[in-house]
Amino acid sequence: MYTHTVQYYETDKMGITHHSNYIRWMEEARVDFLANAGWSYEKLEAEGIISPVVAVNCSYKKNTTFADKVDIEVKIKEFNGVKLKLGYTMFHGSALVCEAESVHCFVNSDGHLIRLKREYPDFCGMLEKNVSD
Amino acid sequence: MYTHTVQYYETDKMGITHHSNYIRWMEEARVDFLANAGWSYEKLEAEGIISPVVAVNCSYKKNTTFADKVDIEVKIKEFNGVKLKLGYTMFHGSALVCEAESVHCFVNSDGHLIRLKREYPDFCGMLEKNVSD
Amino acid sequence: MYTHTVQYYETDKMGITHHSNYIRWMEEARVDFLANAGWSYEKLEAEGIISPVVAVNCSYKKNTTFADKVDIEVKIKEFNGVKLKLGYTMFHGSALVCEAESVHCFVNSDGHLIRLKREYPDFCGMLEKNVSD
Amino acid sequence: MYTHTVQYYETDKMGITHHSNYIRWMEEARVDFLANAGWSYEKLEAEGIISPVVAVNCSYKKNTTFADKVDIEVKIKEFNGVKLKLGYTMFHGSALVCEAESVHCFVNSDGHLIRLKREYPDFCGMLEKNVSD
Repeated sequence: MYTHTVQYYETDKMGITHHSNYIRWMEEARVDFLANAGWSYEKLEAEGIISPVVAVNCSYKKNTTFADKVDIEVKIKEFNGVKLKLGYTMFHGSALVCEAESVHCFVNSDGHLIRLKREYPDFCGMLEKNVSD
Repeated sequence: MYTHTVQYYETDKMGITHHSNYIRWMEEARVDFLANAGWSYEKLEAEGIISPVVAVNCSYKKNTTFADKVDIEVKIKEFNGVKLKLGYTMFHGSALVCEAESVHCFVNSDGHLIRLKREYPDFCGMLEKNVSD
Repeated sequence: MYTHTVQYYETDKMGITHHSNYIRWMEEARVDFLANAGWSYEKLEAEGIISPVVAVNCSYKKNTTFADKVDIEVKIKEFNGVKLKLGYTMFHGSALVCEAESVHCFVNSDGHLIRLKREYPDFCGMLEKNVSD
Repeated sequence: MYTHTVQYYETDKMGITHHSNYIRWMEEARVDFLANAGWSYEKLEAEGIISPVVAVNCSYKKNTTFADKVDIEVKIKEFNGVKLKLGYTMFHGSALVCEAESVHCFVNSDGHLIRLKREYPDFCGMLEKNVSD
């Protein structure tokens, strides 16, 4: 579980967290999730794997604001060897504040799609093993 | 048509625009779209209408980077008197770079949903008139 | 000591942390420093004390980048009952990466300067006690 | 003269522009200033000139907020062939809102300081010619 504390500079004049920041917290939680699974972004980049964001969606359930601690749970929702879909559930205390998803592909430094199964079987296996419903 | 020029501080170490910024450009384009329709955010707030973002989704088609001029077209996709769905199409030159949507509701300063038809018939009429396929 | 981990979205196309983020980390460290001294921003705002930033300066010594852990030490450099000058020293490991200062005043909700000594002697005393060279 | 329109996402829960954004607007105005002088960032990078920010300072005079148009004037304050100091004066209408400075050096892709006079006499000449008091 990754926890982000809402910063003052993340609030807006409505007095709440600006909605664009949740997209950034998804990245923070994703980086943490992959590092915990043994595949930090630094390691991925060192191995020549770049993972662009193909799509995001975010459904805002409740506002948060300055100093709130937001707990973010990350799950692998789908992985077919080429595309990865992650799910994010964000809580403030027991209140669900945001549900979100991101979709990623994997490219090498030339920008070509990587066949993970053949070229990075370890990374591929980790992703497959952790798909959850 | 709203145009955003990509700033250096919007790029990331992949050398491209960080994906979270498109969510912010959607807001820039939305503000511009509503102002052109005679309903600036200032006017909405002065009238006591607050319009929180309920959901966003964003599909990234091509990268952009520093100094690129991104043209953003905004359309009203759906409006049922309570919820408003906007669509965004972003181009760099003739290349489609991003397609996105945002969903909004309308609340007063107490946080209660506003029945736009009864309370703000002019604003409601403008939205209904501009729904496009 | 406050620690900020550099996020991917804080890097730019030079491959390093964008310089504007250090200004934000100063705020993070300041919030943490005041909370540890018993005066969280929430408490200050609840007491009716607003503390605008009057000036900042920042001297960049070494680059940082994604995933670096930056330790930030905050000191009270000057306090005369009206203006507060804070100093920040940021380290990545043993390397000094940034030295910075911020200057603050204290106003009430009407925007009038507060005489802290008379109106908030406890807060004033805490600041005076912690001035360091 | 460069003009930045304050975005909703640049405000904070005090209802005003968050102070960190002025540092970003300095970059926007600097990029514009150099492009108008015939030296866009793209051209500088294509020529192999990288210009890191060595220091910034910012003195906030008046608040700005959402939808304000901020005019930013950039001047070359000092240039000695190695270090460049730029000055920024920001106005909202006729009100001075911020005075700021940034200091820059020039390095090549290896990170070594460039002697502009010898290696880039045209760029050096442009900077020298435009120093103003």
